[in-house]
Amino acid sequence: MTALVCDLGGTNARLGLVEDGLLLPNTVASLANDAFTDFPSLLGSYLVSLQKPDLESICIALAAVPTPEGARLTNRDWDIRRDDVAAAGGVSNVHFLNDFEALALSLRQADQHELQVLYQGTKSSRLGPRLVLGAGTGFNAAVCFPSRIGQASIVSAAECGHMTLPIEGEEELSLQAHLAAGRGRASVERALSGNGLVEIYNWCCRSNGRNLRFHKAAEISAEAASHGDPDCQQAADLLLRLLGRVSGDLALAFLPTGGIFLSGGVTRSLAPLMRATSSTFQTAFRSKGRQSSFMERFPISLLLDDRAALAGCAEWLRSTGAAGSSARLARDDEAT
Amino acid sequence: MTALVCDLGGTNARLGLVEDGLLLPNTVASLANDAFTDFPSLLGSYLVSLQKPDLESICIALAAVPTPEGARLTNRDWDIRRDDVAAAGGVSNVHFLNDFEALALSLRQADQHELQVLYQGTKSSRLGPRLVLGAGTGFNAAVCFPSRIGQASIVSAAECGHMTLPIEGEEELSLQAHLAAGRGRASVERALSGNGLVEIYNWCCRSNGRNLRFHKAAEISAEAASHGDPDCQQAADLLLRLLGRVSGDLALAFLPTGGIFLSGGVTRSLAPLMRATSSTFQTAFRSKGRQSSFMERFPISLLLDDRAALAGCAEWLRSTGAAGSSARLARDDEAT
Repeated sequence: MTALVCDLGGTNARLGLVEDGLLLPNTVASLANDAFTDFPSLLGSYLVSLQKPDLESICIALAAVPTPEGARLTNRDWDIRRDDVAAAGGVSNVHFLNDFEALALSLRQADQHELQVLYQGTKSSRLGPRLVLGAGTGFNAAVCFPSRIGQASIVSAAECGHMTLPIEGEEELSLQAHLAAGRGRASVERALSGNGLVEIYNWCCRSNGRNLRFHKAAEISAEAASHGDPDCQQAADLLLRLLGRVSGDLALAFLPTGGIFLSGGVTRSLAPLMRATSSTFQTAFRSKGRQSSFMERFPISLLLDDRAALAGCAEWLRSTGAAGSSARLARDDEAT
Repeated sequence: MTALVCDLGGTNARLGLVEDGLLLPNTVASLANDAFTDFPSLLGSYLVSLQKPDLESICIALAAVPTPEGARLTNRDWDIRRDDVAAAGGVSNVHFLNDFEALALSLRQADQHELQVLYQGTKSSRLGPRLVLGAGTGFNAAVCFPSRIGQASIVSAAECGHMTLPIEGEEELSLQAHLAAGRGRASVERALSGNGLVEIYNWCCRSNGRNLRFHKAAEISAEAASHGDPDCQQAADLLLRLLGRVSGDLALAFLPTGGIFLSGGVTRSLAPLMRATSSTFQTAFRSKGRQSSFMERFPISLLLDDRAALAGCAEWLRSTGAAGSSARLARDDEAT
């Protein structure tokens, strides 16, 4: 049986075909959303490029809280509707996953991923919860509780980007006010995202009385990672302090002794600044007062695999297609 | 088989006997920790009062991150050691649970508890995650992912009291500085606890240029709940705003469509102020900007059952004593 899997971000869509639960590497393609008026057109174009394969099902991971009927992309003006996708793909089975839920599903087999270990952790456990989190177009996280004897694994979705941005002290209060302007509050993803990095950089320039030299997150992170422009460096340092603090807070919520897996374009673009144990990110992660040594137990890695969300979609199709023992997701599809 | 279960708080210990997985109501007693030099003395005194029953195992829930060998009570100067407990109880099987982990275990059968519904929730699901959280001697939370077909339920422990206290605006920055004095940071439980209420009240009196009239959390919450002393009312209102915000943040992390269950002495003492949909607590819970209507999906109840943690210990003994299908906890006891 052939299925289509898709990782639909705010900027790009990555697609691939799955046969017998395995992603076919030579079918994987990445398309720019901007080149298409809507998602069905993008999907149609991809399928034409593969001579319109016969599909049995479609599984789409996207940055939203999906219902069985679809979702509105959180950070792009696209409505993704089940019926439209079904028509474009010529298939009735269409499933939607939150993108971080898909990443967490892929962590059922974390050792198959390309990883870069940032910190070993003093109490790592292959049976402990695995937390994936990251900053890209937005911010989110999800958790995989690995399978045990007599027990399938569980994946729990989240909407962590909308949590309160945790600030400390005068300088960060000023940043919070800047990020909250016109909105009434500053959520985690107002800072921990591509737009967030640009906003933090704008705030740094204003605080320092300097003109803006850059306008894109990729430029700012590249300057920071190469120790260039001082405002870019300051902005990246602030973002990494907040990312470390939020990651530490989420570690206290989920106790992920199975590992913390960092994902997302912004996170990865700043990776060169995160590797040292004494880096701003790792220091902020552990800065929990009398719990600081407790924080050392958690292993931290960068998830470098671009296809992890596609692998998570394939895993979802595999596990839900299996018998009664199939793993289920901790979601509210089945609301009473 | 007879087992002893214990809910060991910072102030009191509640104990009871369990037979065939059921708590025996006429054996339940609450003892003041202050009356004893250490926990084995307290345990010995309880067992003498019951004519020293033959025990097969002991399960203790306590406010700490336990290891199989025991734990140090987070908010009291007691070391609880497995060997000492085993000697006092005349038994070799001694198990420790985090107190909120025990509460979450009791939520496997949430309908057996005495509850007071604060908010129905627009998308409640009996299959959704159940989140218990609360402020007492300290603050914590835990989650129960209910069982599904082919799947036992999972309970995930946490250390949410040590997360960053999420503040917004000038007034709360001043409170954060007050709570962080001498510590370098303000965690969630620096505000959301009995001591936290006293500290917030002290800060209110200082800000308002008035002398302290009260020194105990119970006095302050009683004044606030009866609309008495204005500084007590202000302190309770601030605590409830922070409690609502933290509860909302944790709801975004765990998506508990199975319900949010509020526990803890401080939470319960302020319950009369939390019931209205327009109350400070409920308003702060939903105040998540463009996600505010999303927040309405989660049901919120007060968990009024004093014996819930004991029921959770009984549930743990029952489920781990069962066959291979027994439920397991998402913890790191089995660290590699």
